[in-house]
Amino acid sequence: MALTTPYLMFLGDAPDQLAAKTASGVVYWRPEICLGQLKLDGCNADLGLEDMTLEEAADAGCKTLVVGVANRGGLISELWIETIVRAIELGMNVASGLHHKIADVREIAAAAERHDAELTDARHPTRSFAVASGKKRAGRRLLSVGTDCSVGKMYAALAIEREMKARGMKATFRATGQTGIFIVGEGVSVDAVVADFISGATEWLCPENDADHWDVIEGQGSLFHASYAGVSMGLLHGAQADTLIMCHEPTRTHMRGLPDYPLPDLGACIRANEEAARLTNPDAVCVGIAVNTHALAPNEAELFLKETEDKHGLPTVDPVTTGVAPIVDRLG
Amino acid sequence: MALTTPYLMFLGDAPDQLAAKTASGVVYWRPEICLGQLKLDGCNADLGLEDMTLEEAADAGCKTLVVGVANRGGLISELWIETIVRAIELGMNVASGLHHKIADVREIAAAAERHDAELTDARHPTRSFAVASGKKRAGRRLLSVGTDCSVGKMYAALAIEREMKARGMKATFRATGQTGIFIVGEGVSVDAVVADFISGATEWLCPENDADHWDVIEGQGSLFHASYAGVSMGLLHGAQADTLIMCHEPTRTHMRGLPDYPLPDLGACIRANEEAARLTNPDAVCVGIAVNTHALAPNEAELFLKETEDKHGLPTVDPVTTGVAPIVDRLG
Repeated sequence: MALTTPYLMFLGDAPDQLAAKTASGVVYWRPEICLGQLKLDGCNADLGLEDMTLEEAADAGCKTLVVGVANRGGLISELWIETIVRAIELGMNVASGLHHKIADVREIAAAAERHDAELTDARHPTRSFAVASGKKRAGRRLLSVGTDCSVGKMYAALAIEREMKARGMKATFRATGQTGIFIVGEGVSVDAVVADFISGATEWLCPENDADHWDVIEGQGSLFHASYAGVSMGLLHGAQADTLIMCHEPTRTHMRGLPDYPLPDLGACIRANEEAARLTNPDAVCVGIAVNTHALAPNEAELFLKETEDKHGLPTVDPVTTGVAPIVDRLG
Repeated sequence: MALTTPYLMFLGDAPDQLAAKTASGVVYWRPEICLGQLKLDGCNADLGLEDMTLEEAADAGCKTLVVGVANRGGLISELWIETIVRAIELGMNVASGLHHKIADVREIAAAAERHDAELTDARHPTRSFAVASGKKRAGRRLLSVGTDCSVGKMYAALAIEREMKARGMKATFRATGQTGIFIVGEGVSVDAVVADFISGATEWLCPENDADHWDVIEGQGSLFHASYAGVSMGLLHGAQADTLIMCHEPTRTHMRGLPDYPLPDLGACIRANEEAARLTNPDAVCVGIAVNTHALAPNEAELFLKETEDKHGLPTVDPVTTGVAPIVDRLG
């Protein structure tokens, strides 16, 4: 899998901005590869990109139509199918982050066959993986972990990769979810891998590398999430991370999707992740905390970062508002 | 999935007794449903059952041909296919524990279609599962966990179910791997579920039940196995176990398949499992240790059980040689 760029971002009839979260993430991190957006009637999301018809996008050189939106009801509507088929007829590949595979839609598969187009269902790994070997491998690795799902693990990892590159360090972001895959054009949705191969898929994703090269790996879920901790654990072991970044969202009142589960204590969460990571890398250590302060007022955010930093003795940043320089300072 | 019994056990050309480990487990726990065995030329395994031709087995009333053997080279040989097709023609269903699905073999699928036979690939879940809810549910649950893979988690769970039933307690063994599935005729191979649904599949497997009913759940892998810990973690959370049994094999020199990984300390392994289990059941506690002493001399075995019991303050048994009564005494 290696997605062709630039992209036309397809928003369908997204009911609100949240439904376009995947597309928004791609535009935030890679505006230069997002040439335009295509909305259908009833779409209430906007990416701030130029509105384009499929024909205009093809003329402008768009190589891939990216379906980066949650669809109503979980099924792919007739209107979407028509749009996707037309994009293929105009010479584009199609990449989708939908739960249902676009490759399973008869009309889309037939059009791709006719026009030799690539269909990429980013949520669905297309290859198989070996069982993890646990063997120590060269290169340095950082993994973002979290107190919960959707607390900024991808943003933290991408910000660290960007900061490392700005300093001339060798770094590669490794995507483990659909949005990350659209951003860098490749990766593995580890939560969609067969359970026995979570760690093996992660080893494959960040193989041995130069001794001074950093793989900056996007984490998934949380060791404290009752639905997804198995994925987080397998990822932690497969990553063999030297360093962990703990990610947190301070206004969350309970674990995502689990009203009865409170957030873990930040310190306990750091210790549990370090302990689990040390099975495959005895030197694993958490070197910073990344907080998504979006829901806080600026003065509250500043205070929260300061207090968290003092309490845990670790550089504490918001990757979006403060940047991650204090964390990368520790990774020389 | 609910397998029809009795079984004809198919051993193919198993090179040695170890290759027939699955079939041996079924015969050990359910001799009454294993009417006979069928070997091909070159088979070096034996289950101590009557040798039967397919025709004799059909006449004797065998309802399912069980392929409970590891095959040479990983592919299903022509000779096996011929045998399986003939069994179907004689009216049997077929259940397989092979990595490759028998349902994917054209001749076998066609024969099953023609004769309306059930094909069960026990390693491959055929249904989808919801994401785990983490919601507390009624009924009591016990999960066997381990220091490593293949240390007797299934044997411990089956022995406990048997002892509970002998005492008139309500108990159901819940199978999470192929051998267990053959033994009770149903279950889910949790390591073959898509990673996001490990805990959800486990919740489905042992749903709410009477307050005095015990689900005795077969564990998989180990929290300390660098390849499979994600599965063990998801199973631990989905089980919401009230009680854990720690399983151990004392002569193992390294983690199975991982020469560089030593076994964890038994006490540390108990504590780590209790801690992880308490995310979804705050009262989870380890109530006993099950040791597979098969590789020890009788006096060594006795000493090891005694020393382990004294050191950890928990009833310590070998489910096969001493039985599990001291553990079940704690589960009244």
